[in-house]
Amino acid sequence: MNANAQDTAQDVVSYMRELGQRARAASRDIARADSGAKNAALRAIADAIEQAKPTLIAENRKDLDAGRANGLSAALLDRLELTDARIAGMAEGLRQIAMQPDPVGQITDMAYQPSGLQIGKMRVPLGVIGIIYESRPNVTADAAGLCLKAGNATILRGGSEALHSNQAVAACIQAGIAAAGLPAAVVQVVKTSDRAAVGELITMSEFVDVIVPRGGKGLIQRISADARVPVIKHLDGNCHVYIDDAADADKAIAVAVNAKTYRYGICGAMETLLVAESRAAALLPVLAEQFADKGVELRGCAKTQAIVPSANPATDEDWATEYLAPILAVRVVEGIDDAIAHIAHYGSHHTDAIITESLAKSRQFMREVDSSSVMVNAATCFSDGFEYGLGAEIGISTDKLHVRGPVGVEGLTTQKYVVIGEGTTR
Amino acid sequence: MNANAQDTAQDVVSYMRELGQRARAASRDIARADSGAKNAALRAIADAIEQAKPTLIAENRKDLDAGRANGLSAALLDRLELTDARIAGMAEGLRQIAMQPDPVGQITDMAYQPSGLQIGKMRVPLGVIGIIYESRPNVTADAAGLCLKAGNATILRGGSEALHSNQAVAACIQAGIAAAGLPAAVVQVVKTSDRAAVGELITMSEFVDVIVPRGGKGLIQRISADARVPVIKHLDGNCHVYIDDAADADKAIAVAVNAKTYRYGICGAMETLLVAESRAAALLPVLAEQFADKGVELRGCAKTQAIVPSANPATDEDWATEYLAPILAVRVVEGIDDAIAHIAHYGSHHTDAIITESLAKSRQFMREVDSSSVMVNAATCFSDGFEYGLGAEIGISTDKLHVRGPVGVEGLTTQKYVVIGEGTTR
Repeated sequence: MNANAQDTAQDVVSYMRELGQRARAASRDIARADSGAKNAALRAIADAIEQAKPTLIAENRKDLDAGRANGLSAALLDRLELTDARIAGMAEGLRQIAMQPDPVGQITDMAYQPSGLQIGKMRVPLGVIGIIYESRPNVTADAAGLCLKAGNATILRGGSEALHSNQAVAACIQAGIAAAGLPAAVVQVVKTSDRAAVGELITMSEFVDVIVPRGGKGLIQRISADARVPVIKHLDGNCHVYIDDAADADKAIAVAVNAKTYRYGICGAMETLLVAESRAAALLPVLAEQFADKGVELRGCAKTQAIVPSANPATDEDWATEYLAPILAVRVVEGIDDAIAHIAHYGSHHTDAIITESLAKSRQFMREVDSSSVMVNAATCFSDGFEYGLGAEIGISTDKLHVRGPVGVEGLTTQKYVVIGEGTTR
Repeated sequence: MNANAQDTAQDVVSYMRELGQRARAASRDIARADSGAKNAALRAIADAIEQAKPTLIAENRKDLDAGRANGLSAALLDRLELTDARIAGMAEGLRQIAMQPDPVGQITDMAYQPSGLQIGKMRVPLGVIGIIYESRPNVTADAAGLCLKAGNATILRGGSEALHSNQAVAACIQAGIAAAGLPAAVVQVVKTSDRAAVGELITMSEFVDVIVPRGGKGLIQRISADARVPVIKHLDGNCHVYIDDAADADKAIAVAVNAKTYRYGICGAMETLLVAESRAAALLPVLAEQFADKGVELRGCAKTQAIVPSANPATDEDWATEYLAPILAVRVVEGIDDAIAHIAHYGSHHTDAIITESLAKSRQFMREVDSSSVMVNAATCFSDGFEYGLGAEIGISTDKLHVRGPVGVEGLTTQKYVVIGEGTTR
């Protein structure tokens, strides 16, 4: 590293720590802001985004042009683009967040203890949240809105490929925050694309309480490995549907096809289908035909191949793979215990479903499968904050601690004990 | 490192990974064990501990003798000792845990969504918990009992100074688990005092879901710095009592004296007293006299010293210090805003109290002070799982994520989504 690069790295560290200090100070203001002020800010940001549509599209074009010049893939360019619909979607999303209930200050479990003390829990913001994301500039508005509603200050760090777009969205956020009389540092967007900024953001634990990375598995693994601040992670979604002995045939076929083909690229898409031996001969040919119609490649175990000769052989790696593509691994299992053991061994603890009419089997599956979402007679692709009634989601957590599954506003808060006495001593 | 040391380190790693694999397998058994079996195990362990009293005392004596030979301090020897009362306490603690409600399987927030899906949350065990602790062999039984009740498998790693005592307690635990028909690997006690065992325990994230260190700040900081598994931490308890303008004088004096002098060495002990300027002249002399009677040294700001000439001067470092000793920092503040700012700047977010008769001030303090416990007209020394109605506690968390404040059985669990449909597709 030459002297200039060192200077720059030092500058980036100073810059990030300044953002951190301002965020920490602003977090105390936003924590005590009332719901009215927060909702007014969210609506004002939505208005500002709608009004700034021409600017947003012009700034986004700069990123798109640079992306094309740098040879970004068509998929990445698509994610990067701000269309009229996406801009309307950002504004609509913010207005929906404004309409959700405010979790901050909710007191629960308040009860008298033998000492005479009244003790309960109050829901409070986490403090300062760092969001690290790639490509999609609309995340800037979504993430800022959710964090603000939960009473947190936010530091947003988008990808360099979306720098102009993110700054243009940031200007709308600043306008909305100012209109509601909240301090500007409640939402700060990192203005450098220097990678040292991320390194500092994920290690300055005196200023940042939690990091939420949004992006591919590679990004999340890199951040988790280096972070000294807690990270709410979303890793693999290797999701299973198990068709039980006691499954209704029509439900089994409908759910299995939907779970795979609703959208191949989502984390809730089914990647392995498990079928009870007693039902395989009747159901697999029907399923194979439907999957063939949709262009889904099947990779099966030996018993599957015996019933569906067109299926390719599945290797051990197939059972562990999140394809995110029109490929499906299929395995015939002895029954529910075998299915649960397969999921425990190969699964990623994201979302797994059983198709059964048996109450006992549904209870066993719900209890014993250790995944963030366990489903009965429902397609795994439902694993989503909107579908779960959380409103918008900041992501889906595959962690076990703090939050698990889709994370909405409440997942961005914590609880503290409140203790009320009358001069009570011990 | 010579070849022998390398061999040994490799052996320790293999040994720990074997414990980890067995714990992971056993975690699935204990997760689905019903409350009856878990409670039977807890009671059988309590019985075994009572029956083994002579053995426990004999094995403990070996540790005490070795400790004396190695020059352990009187305080450490005291913590290490298993007396009749402490053995009875272990058994009683386990029976109390058996009587507590079982959180595993509780379903909450179950509601229908527009899709027709019924969606709620089920409380489930965390999986495998690693406990790292020092000196006190009774932690072996407490920690194992709480983790077992919450449906987790546990790996316990006590200090080398308590190796014989911990193994003797472990034998009682094994007897109890076997009597209830649960697998032995539900609770495993590490049998080597090699430090490499800790290094492996806190990094083998495929086998361990969370680490709970119990001991001094040094131990916890070392573990947190090196861990790749999430750690539930208990760091400083720099606790404040703020006597507000609207305080009742008698309550203020009673609470302040109790918060400091109930026990100097607990994390909930008051370390800094903040007094509103309007009350300082009347209250500080009375408090100074009472603290003098108890032998508490006062270290005050200039305004405090003007009222209480016997007080020593407080430095900036005093405001940030957890004395755990008969020393108290005292500062005169302008009022509640000044007090809250002081606590935000110097506090450790553990437990802080306001003494006031004003509803508005109590609400402001509860909302704006960002600590795991916020108290009104109560002594900070109440910050404790038993006092909070949690039954036994595994520790007090100063983290914000997952659990905050005293951690009981529920803090050793997590939640997953349960989703029930009727063949529902998207």
